[in-house]
Amino acid sequence: MKKLINDPANYVDEMLDGLCAAHPELVHVGNDRRAIARSRTMPLGKVGVVSGGGSGHLPLFTGYVGEGLLDACAIGNVFEGPTINSCQDAIAAANGGAGVLCLFGNYGGDKMNFEMAGEFAAMEGIETRTVLGTDDIASAGPNETAKRRGVAGLIFAYKAAGAKAAAGGDLDAVAAAAQKAVDRTRTIGIALSSCQIPGAAGPNFTIADDEIEMGMGIHGEPGIWRKPIRPVDELVDEMMGLLLAERPQDARRVAVLVNSLGATPFEELFIIYRRVAKVLDEAGIAIGQRLTGPYVTSMEMGGASISLCYLDEEIEPLLAAPAQCPFWQVG
Amino acid sequence: MKKLINDPANYVDEMLDGLCAAHPELVHVGNDRRAIARSRTMPLGKVGVVSGGGSGHLPLFTGYVGEGLLDACAIGNVFEGPTINSCQDAIAAANGGAGVLCLFGNYGGDKMNFEMAGEFAAMEGIETRTVLGTDDIASAGPNETAKRRGVAGLIFAYKAAGAKAAAGGDLDAVAAAAQKAVDRTRTIGIALSSCQIPGAAGPNFTIADDEIEMGMGIHGEPGIWRKPIRPVDELVDEMMGLLLAERPQDARRVAVLVNSLGATPFEELFIIYRRVAKVLDEAGIAIGQRLTGPYVTSMEMGGASISLCYLDEEIEPLLAAPAQCPFWQVG
Repeated sequence: MKKLINDPANYVDEMLDGLCAAHPELVHVGNDRRAIARSRTMPLGKVGVVSGGGSGHLPLFTGYVGEGLLDACAIGNVFEGPTINSCQDAIAAANGGAGVLCLFGNYGGDKMNFEMAGEFAAMEGIETRTVLGTDDIASAGPNETAKRRGVAGLIFAYKAAGAKAAAGGDLDAVAAAAQKAVDRTRTIGIALSSCQIPGAAGPNFTIADDEIEMGMGIHGEPGIWRKPIRPVDELVDEMMGLLLAERPQDARRVAVLVNSLGATPFEELFIIYRRVAKVLDEAGIAIGQRLTGPYVTSMEMGGASISLCYLDEEIEPLLAAPAQCPFWQVG
Repeated sequence: MKKLINDPANYVDEMLDGLCAAHPELVHVGNDRRAIARSRTMPLGKVGVVSGGGSGHLPLFTGYVGEGLLDACAIGNVFEGPTINSCQDAIAAANGGAGVLCLFGNYGGDKMNFEMAGEFAAMEGIETRTVLGTDDIASAGPNETAKRRGVAGLIFAYKAAGAKAAAGGDLDAVAAAAQKAVDRTRTIGIALSSCQIPGAAGPNFTIADDEIEMGMGIHGEPGIWRKPIRPVDELVDEMMGLLLAERPQDARRVAVLVNSLGATPFEELFIIYRRVAKVLDEAGIAIGQRLTGPYVTSMEMGGASISLCYLDEEIEPLLAAPAQCPFWQVG
């Protein structure tokens, strides 16, 4: 698999250098430069919102540092969680004296390192809370949602938490907004082709030329089934059926994210969106916010995911509040 | 090559249905629904700005219909120019009584059909002008710039023309702004892997697993050379050398677009951007605007292009003026 890169050992650092050069509103923080923060000073009294995770998923995680979204983000190697140091650096950068929410995907390494970083932060007088993204319905059953992985729907939690913090919410309120967004968001993906970690001998996984995998995770974690490819409307109907089977009782309006895992082009996302809108209409569910594009990827992986965030009178205005980061502008 | 589509015969229309469903500020116009316009009424007295081209390049062409950009766009089948009818529909939708600029890439079919549509428009009392995008320096030599194809740099001409029209410029002024942006923009691309037209038996072209092609066009038109892949900094240095060799004498500031041709991920674009910024710094050229992402693609084609638009005191404020479309927000 060909890549436009230099020495794979420098991939992450060169990528971060380029990100900050292309977006001067972002800066490196920390001795090892593996955390990214906003270049403006953290406002005193505002709750900080921090995320973190492995590289290879841009815009996730660090592309969502910006106004009304994340204050800082810790970055690991490709598909590896950030170090404890990087998590500490991100928490320190997001400290405005009102506490810091750590909001990231439900993966073992990330949890362990953010937990340690939170303990060190507490020793320095910084209060933290943790909320985990668990939106991938293919990764565990509806009775074990705490085991589910976080995928594309995490960005709705970023948006809700960021808006609540920008509006002056305290740490409990910001954590509650993030948790509510997580609890009301469901995602399922479909994979067509693999990505490859820079420097690796081969692709992360293989999949036959006529096959697709329903529910595969963003690092290639096994999904629900692998079958021959079919017309996408049939696939969308199946995906929407799985998503809507777990809808909350008060499901009336949703925010929709049709996301490219990397190589799948905009044209196909719009073909998918069109069918998603039809299924929602038939289910009597209105669409309150629409996102279509590469929001959470796995480098050049082929495939797409559908996320639904079930809106209520608290979540909808938080998602609609103004926000501005390199990859997402609202209002 | 796997695609998330239905019947290939419906690919373009389903894509356009999805685009308009996901972006209610856009609407279909015309009997065959192959032109897209803004859903708001065309303001009386404003010059219209229209583009058009084949499908398969989103966000180009029709993704740039929006405030301060295009008023309407004609859409052809994948990699085929729009029909005369669709060009007429787009011109009619962009008619505010002050004339319409037709601004599109320098391809034979597009030119022929827009020319005929312009003649029909004249019979209906709509004055038109034509400006052609010719930014691809790999497609013809510096003494035959009129033969060059239009590629990613066309979006700078959209922005300049759209801003000039929004500011109340007359048809001559809007055409002059577009022509100046074209004249001051240079692009070169590098291809890693092919795309495939929906329904075709195979990919558009083949390229060996360890090879890349410098200067390939966005439909797979032959480039300058095909060689084994090298570290991307070396490739960027060569691309920048070719671009800067044709810089205008007053080159002091540029807008930069590092564009993904489809499958090449954001991470690699930022690694490229970082090197582009270094080369420009060493050449004493300042960067006035930065764009990094999939702005002009060929579906799932792998590769990237670099565009430089040399700024002057007229072009820079036009590029910086507020604009809003599904894929590009400024200000």
